[in-house]
Amino acid sequence: MKKYDEVKKVIYDPKSDDPFTFSYYNPEEVILGKKMKDHLKFAISYWHTIDACGTDMFGGDTMDKNFGKDYGLERYNKKADFAFELMDKLQIEYYCFHDVDIAPVGKTLEESMKYFNEMVDYISELQKKHNKKLLWNTANNFGDKIFMAGAATSPNADVFACAAAKVKAGLDAAKKLNASGYVFWGGREGYETLLNTKVKFEQENIANLMRMARDYGRKIGFDGTFLIEPKPKEPMKHQYDYDAATAIGFLKEYGLDKDFMMNIEANHATLAGHTFQHELRISRINNMLGSIDANQGDVMLGWDTDCFPSNVYDTTLAMYEIVKNNGLPVGINFDSKNRRPSNTYEDMFHAFILGMDSFALGLIKAAAIIEDGRIEGFIDKKYESYKSELGQKIRRGETTLEELAEKASQMKNVKTPSSGAQEYLEGVLNNIILANNI
Amino acid sequence: MKKYDEVKKVIYDPKSDDPFTFSYYNPEEVILGKKMKDHLKFAISYWHTIDACGTDMFGGDTMDKNFGKDYGLERYNKKADFAFELMDKLQIEYYCFHDVDIAPVGKTLEESMKYFNEMVDYISELQKKHNKKLLWNTANNFGDKIFMAGAATSPNADVFACAAAKVKAGLDAAKKLNASGYVFWGGREGYETLLNTKVKFEQENIANLMRMARDYGRKIGFDGTFLIEPKPKEPMKHQYDYDAATAIGFLKEYGLDKDFMMNIEANHATLAGHTFQHELRISRINNMLGSIDANQGDVMLGWDTDCFPSNVYDTTLAMYEIVKNNGLPVGINFDSKNRRPSNTYEDMFHAFILGMDSFALGLIKAAAIIEDGRIEGFIDKKYESYKSELGQKIRRGETTLEELAEKASQMKNVKTPSSGAQEYLEGVLNNIILANNI
Amino acid sequence: MKKYDEVKKVIYDPKSDDPFTFSYYNPEEVILGKKMKDHLKFAISYWHTIDACGTDMFGGDTMDKNFGKDYGLERYNKKADFAFELMDKLQIEYYCFHDVDIAPVGKTLEESMKYFNEMVDYISELQKKHNKKLLWNTANNFGDKIFMAGAATSPNADVFACAAAKVKAGLDAAKKLNASGYVFWGGREGYETLLNTKVKFEQENIANLMRMARDYGRKIGFDGTFLIEPKPKEPMKHQYDYDAATAIGFLKEYGLDKDFMMNIEANHATLAGHTFQHELRISRINNMLGSIDANQGDVMLGWDTDCFPSNVYDTTLAMYEIVKNNGLPVGINFDSKNRRPSNTYEDMFHAFILGMDSFALGLIKAAAIIEDGRIEGFIDKKYESYKSELGQKIRRGETTLEELAEKASQMKNVKTPSSGAQEYLEGVLNNIILANNI
Amino acid sequence: MKKYDEVKKVIYDPKSDDPFTFSYYNPEEVILGKKMKDHLKFAISYWHTIDACGTDMFGGDTMDKNFGKDYGLERYNKKADFAFELMDKLQIEYYCFHDVDIAPVGKTLEESMKYFNEMVDYISELQKKHNKKLLWNTANNFGDKIFMAGAATSPNADVFACAAAKVKAGLDAAKKLNASGYVFWGGREGYETLLNTKVKFEQENIANLMRMARDYGRKIGFDGTFLIEPKPKEPMKHQYDYDAATAIGFLKEYGLDKDFMMNIEANHATLAGHTFQHELRISRINNMLGSIDANQGDVMLGWDTDCFPSNVYDTTLAMYEIVKNNGLPVGINFDSKNRRPSNTYEDMFHAFILGMDSFALGLIKAAAIIEDGRIEGFIDKKYESYKSELGQKIRRGETTLEELAEKASQMKNVKTPSSGAQEYLEGVLNNIILANNI
Repeated sequence: MKKYDEVKKVIYDPKSDDPFTFSYYNPEEVILGKKMKDHLKFAISYWHTIDACGTDMFGGDTMDKNFGKDYGLERYNKKADFAFELMDKLQIEYYCFHDVDIAPVGKTLEESMKYFNEMVDYISELQKKHNKKLLWNTANNFGDKIFMAGAATSPNADVFACAAAKVKAGLDAAKKLNASGYVFWGGREGYETLLNTKVKFEQENIANLMRMARDYGRKIGFDGTFLIEPKPKEPMKHQYDYDAATAIGFLKEYGLDKDFMMNIEANHATLAGHTFQHELRISRINNMLGSIDANQGDVMLGWDTDCFPSNVYDTTLAMYEIVKNNGLPVGINFDSKNRRPSNTYEDMFHAFILGMDSFALGLIKAAAIIEDGRIEGFIDKKYESYKSELGQKIRRGETTLEELAEKASQMKNVKTPSSGAQEYLEGVLNNIILANNI
Repeated sequence: MKKYDEVKKVIYDPKSDDPFTFSYYNPEEVILGKKMKDHLKFAISYWHTIDACGTDMFGGDTMDKNFGKDYGLERYNKKADFAFELMDKLQIEYYCFHDVDIAPVGKTLEESMKYFNEMVDYISELQKKHNKKLLWNTANNFGDKIFMAGAATSPNADVFACAAAKVKAGLDAAKKLNASGYVFWGGREGYETLLNTKVKFEQENIANLMRMARDYGRKIGFDGTFLIEPKPKEPMKHQYDYDAATAIGFLKEYGLDKDFMMNIEANHATLAGHTFQHELRISRINNMLGSIDANQGDVMLGWDTDCFPSNVYDTTLAMYEIVKNNGLPVGINFDSKNRRPSNTYEDMFHAFILGMDSFALGLIKAAAIIEDGRIEGFIDKKYESYKSELGQKIRRGETTLEELAEKASQMKNVKTPSSGAQEYLEGVLNNIILANNI
Repeated sequence: MKKYDEVKKVIYDPKSDDPFTFSYYNPEEVILGKKMKDHLKFAISYWHTIDACGTDMFGGDTMDKNFGKDYGLERYNKKADFAFELMDKLQIEYYCFHDVDIAPVGKTLEESMKYFNEMVDYISELQKKHNKKLLWNTANNFGDKIFMAGAATSPNADVFACAAAKVKAGLDAAKKLNASGYVFWGGREGYETLLNTKVKFEQENIANLMRMARDYGRKIGFDGTFLIEPKPKEPMKHQYDYDAATAIGFLKEYGLDKDFMMNIEANHATLAGHTFQHELRISRINNMLGSIDANQGDVMLGWDTDCFPSNVYDTTLAMYEIVKNNGLPVGINFDSKNRRPSNTYEDMFHAFILGMDSFALGLIKAAAIIEDGRIEGFIDKKYESYKSELGQKIRRGETTLEELAEKASQMKNVKTPSSGAQEYLEGVLNNIILANNI
Repeated sequence: MKKYDEVKKVIYDPKSDDPFTFSYYNPEEVILGKKMKDHLKFAISYWHTIDACGTDMFGGDTMDKNFGKDYGLERYNKKADFAFELMDKLQIEYYCFHDVDIAPVGKTLEESMKYFNEMVDYISELQKKHNKKLLWNTANNFGDKIFMAGAATSPNADVFACAAAKVKAGLDAAKKLNASGYVFWGGREGYETLLNTKVKFEQENIANLMRMARDYGRKIGFDGTFLIEPKPKEPMKHQYDYDAATAIGFLKEYGLDKDFMMNIEANHATLAGHTFQHELRISRINNMLGSIDANQGDVMLGWDTDCFPSNVYDTTLAMYEIVKNNGLPVGINFDSKNRRPSNTYEDMFHAFILGMDSFALGLIKAAAIIEDGRIEGFIDKKYESYKSELGQKIRRGETTLEELAEKASQMKNVKTPSSGAQEYLEGVLNNIILANNI
């Protein structure tokens, strides 16, 4: 097999034996009237791809991503150079970061900000040079010990102010780098125990920070989408943005639903007891499906594994929701990391090829479901009794319990609805997903 | 041990060796200025207590509750007689039922309604005679095959009409029997597979039925509380009223939040990945904590076990939320069943004594937490930085990212918040729960 | 779409638009030197397919499988006729049953036995006429109330004797019908609470019953395989045959491992926290992989859903283990049921076609994995250091801590093992599963 | 509240308001004829208590445990000094460690060994000075990148040799420090994916290492207990020592069951889907209950939270098993850590007091269960039918299916077993646990 440096560019070549080619991702190919790359808008996640080295709770690094530099800004320059070269090689146009991913943390907030701004400038140049775009960025308001009890939900108002300062810097960067979105992931916004927590108080504070962020962002001309990324737990016992339904309810309660959408992560969905498709569907029908964090959990495990997506059933159903959503306002970020023992640079290629091909095939299959028409045709027919006069009155809210009771009393035999046909539909899905590939 | 018939009345007698006495439940005892029985408003659930006989998915009945009658109304009369006698023996003042619990199902809807109304009359008399009250009732819109694909969410508009008719009859009964509440539990309101489901369409139909129910109820003078009982799954793969946050969001979205509150079931909470206290807290801070279904799940099992509550940690924290809610507008229904091998009438006493004593002690301990003051004092102190000028501006939404960033940049050392002290608080809780009982 | 009666035989016709055809299951097709039908040895489960009508814990029947007969043996004759016709239509050669599935339960054990034996005779004739075989049978020692506290583990020795009598009748039937296997599923062999249970005592009693069964079976000339079907819980809080590792340990402890093997069910595997492949692998490497119950659980749900298998990733990895096991001594039983709202006879076809095609394609893909060689080649290379002198000494147990410590102290740089390459292998798997179908 | 330095010794003083006193742990108090401290044999875990500083997967340290020393042996001397002082203050007599907990890791294995041996000498002196004992030690064969694919299960034989060298050093230390036990926790002994794993091969290698360890240990005169600590997953997808039943089966398969016992951790039990009591019971009835890791998981969370134990139901049932086991050959290690936001040295006291008091009260209550006699009396009566002639023949294995079938056919009415009385027993348990404390 080739070495990392020998792989100049991963190209679409489905007949090839070379493991460093795409079998399905063909960026310029047109599906349902739009190029694959515009359906998919893939991004690398800076933290997993450029920074993380395999550490877990029970063991240290298995990779070296220091690029020969032990510390300081220079190391971060090297990291950024590597990031943009890797995007070139993978034909990925977008990237995502937290503030602390791209720049060193200083001894004071001020020093950190200085480094951050310098690196934003540096990355801005790379962005132009490599013709790349920032999908979204965010502030890491969860890692430092000052955030140990939350950022917007910290019991310490000074910590709230620091969090706000970091969000401001993030929005300045988002504006400068022309990001499509800005994300809030509330990793420490929740509780460890209700014994020491005022839930309402904390939720109001989150809403306050988000309102300020929206107001500031709009004021400086940031016109991207604000996003909440729901996660039910981990690191905390409970996080307030538990799932899409909860986060959407929160946004509506606090009048934030016009500016905010959902960034749905597959692994967070399953940690909340939902399928990925469920979370996408809930977001979509509320007009709040903004972006996704593409990865895959292990449903037998109770933590965020952030595996690269490989299950084409899941990517097909996800892309089906995305296509029905007329695409994503933001895009698809691979919030995915190589398994700890996959510790070579070549493994990084295998991982992205796996993820990108799985989503590309998912897109192809989602289009095939729509073109095939059997599944959607079944659904349309299933609900057709609501086209009747009775059905229409129910739908329009123009009837009453009395009227319905009267009608029901006249029915001789109420018909059991027709079969839900789940097995038939699963067979159709299998035939579509499994047939005629390559 | 005594036999069922030998137990005339279960009384409070904490020093007794008789297993058919209460150790903690002393109905007239005053706690925090209110009688125990008014804090607790216990109800039996008709379905589990009077109807269910031990059947599960892998085996048949282990008890006989036919009272010598093989079929017909007479059997239901006997059941009702038994129910009210049992309530007398247990000093329980309330009961709850679905329509099909109290009356036989006829061949047609009309016939079923006739039986139901006759039994409502019969029960109305018993209610007066025994001085009991209806806590809440509901329609079983999930058991019959016509509801196999939902009631309000059925794809068949005729089925919607039948469901509406049954809700109407339920509200008439609620009015007649002067119920404190009327409950919606959407056991079939959800989906088995997204492959055949229009989620938004179905949710709108649920909202339509609930609006009609509210309008009809208020029109006939029913002034009780409407309640949604969230459950995430089982029997369906996904139920729309997943948890309190989801159901509250739904009610607000559809303008139903003024008339509806939550009926929180402990076992449904844990099936949704939450503690019972969490669901109560979420309901409480949204002013929607209306009633509870008191039971206990087995957190190692993935289905609704409906065990009688025995864990005094859980009942204490539940009663703490209820006391902080100024009590429950509706009450505490034992949606609990004897274990299948606990198949004697004496086991029914043991079960209720277990549940009632556990909640009574929970109440005593909740009051003790409040009187002790250490836990609440800790919380107050924890957030006190929000009483500062900066804190107040944040709380009142009178500051901006710019101002906060400016302030943050001037901070020399941002202080890590003080300890969350979880272990200290758990120790205090243990000392309160475990000390000085009896 | 065709009606049930119009479907004379489901045939392999991958180009057809007829939903009542197989796309992958081609019984006579030779894969790896053996016919598909001999690799797969499919069976219907009598209980789900012929008896179950859609009842769940929250609702009644949605189908009618009485065949116009209200009670008695005649109904069971009709059921049997239907069963064998259905097997003909589906090209399925095997079936499985519990005693109570094929015959009515009498008022006494004796009467039940009489009915059972008559029906065994009846089925014996049908078996010959339709050229079908019994894959395995078993006794339902969990449904009746006498088994509410277990069968072999009942605290009542008389119940143990009844269970033994039913096992004896089952073995007589197995011998008469020439079954390939006889199964023990311990649905009530476990505990509801440790507060009332002697675990060791109960496990010894299970072993005693199994030993007697083996001795009796061998004595009457039954030469099939005895099987334990592990399940961790449901209906009980804990079942002793938790998973394959536990059941294999039990069999070895009590000297039963020469006659017993595992019957691994997919849904039971996931309820125990394992993948289906894991349970198959553990059984296989212990030379105890005897049979499988083919179905599919919903990993978001905590109970046995017994869905028909549709996930081709799972069927491929399952068939990979089975092929590496040189096939199954017994076979593949569809312990699967139609979803409750899939309540037509046509849905039964869709369900079996889904399941059979998914396993047929799984077999094709398992063969492709082996022929492709990349995955197995990777594994062989991964462990090759154990072919070194040091490696061989470790493997043969011919070295000591002292010697190894001495060698380790001389190593300059211990090499981190080469990459586990999980993403690469998942990509290979995807390419094999998804490519070149039909 | 007092500061850390002001707390000279935590003493038993149940009437005190001082939060730095024990309410239940009274070391010299005699329970069931043995001193509390000898029943409990508490140990601190060096890694959590002396080394860990609050880092989790999403954030850095919240505490400083460097004791003013930035690196080198001196820091480890300070840590050890602190450890023994803390044990003095807490009246804890035992401690546990991994090799890397007590000494720095060198650039080579040799250098690491040198440091380790120096620190063992240092600790040996402290042990004498403070009159403390080593409960058990172990080798950290999972943290370094050379162990990323396992230690005994590494595909690299050199890594196996290194692991062996570290075990040898550990056994030398165990001998020198007179440890009661030596533990194997196989954190990397399992698989991430079956796609790249030879399970049998790897299990044989584990057995080989354990045999060598036993042989070496016995040879050098180490007469403590070897222990396996089961854990089902985390960090790996699957760990071979899944639970007690699996680990016991493994030990018997490979002839290791005479020298090895179980070290059962509460949080690992629940991660495997079992209660803590279940794992203790399984170990006890196999005569393999050697030691416990005392902590508490959050059953709503899917990872090892290692909370300090606070639930007195759990500690009571655990101590019940331990008392029935005639105590623990090794002891009770607090494999527990302060919550991340509990980041003061005072929190460490609160945590240990919580854990020690919870176990002390558990012991008191376990003794009370035995003295009370109702629960055990119930069990004895439950199984008494096995004292009959029929029962005795079954128990002794002296009957056959034919004989039992014959007897069963003569039974007129097989009696349903008497009630399991779970609610009654839970009520008794509650009354015992909650009554008469302090």
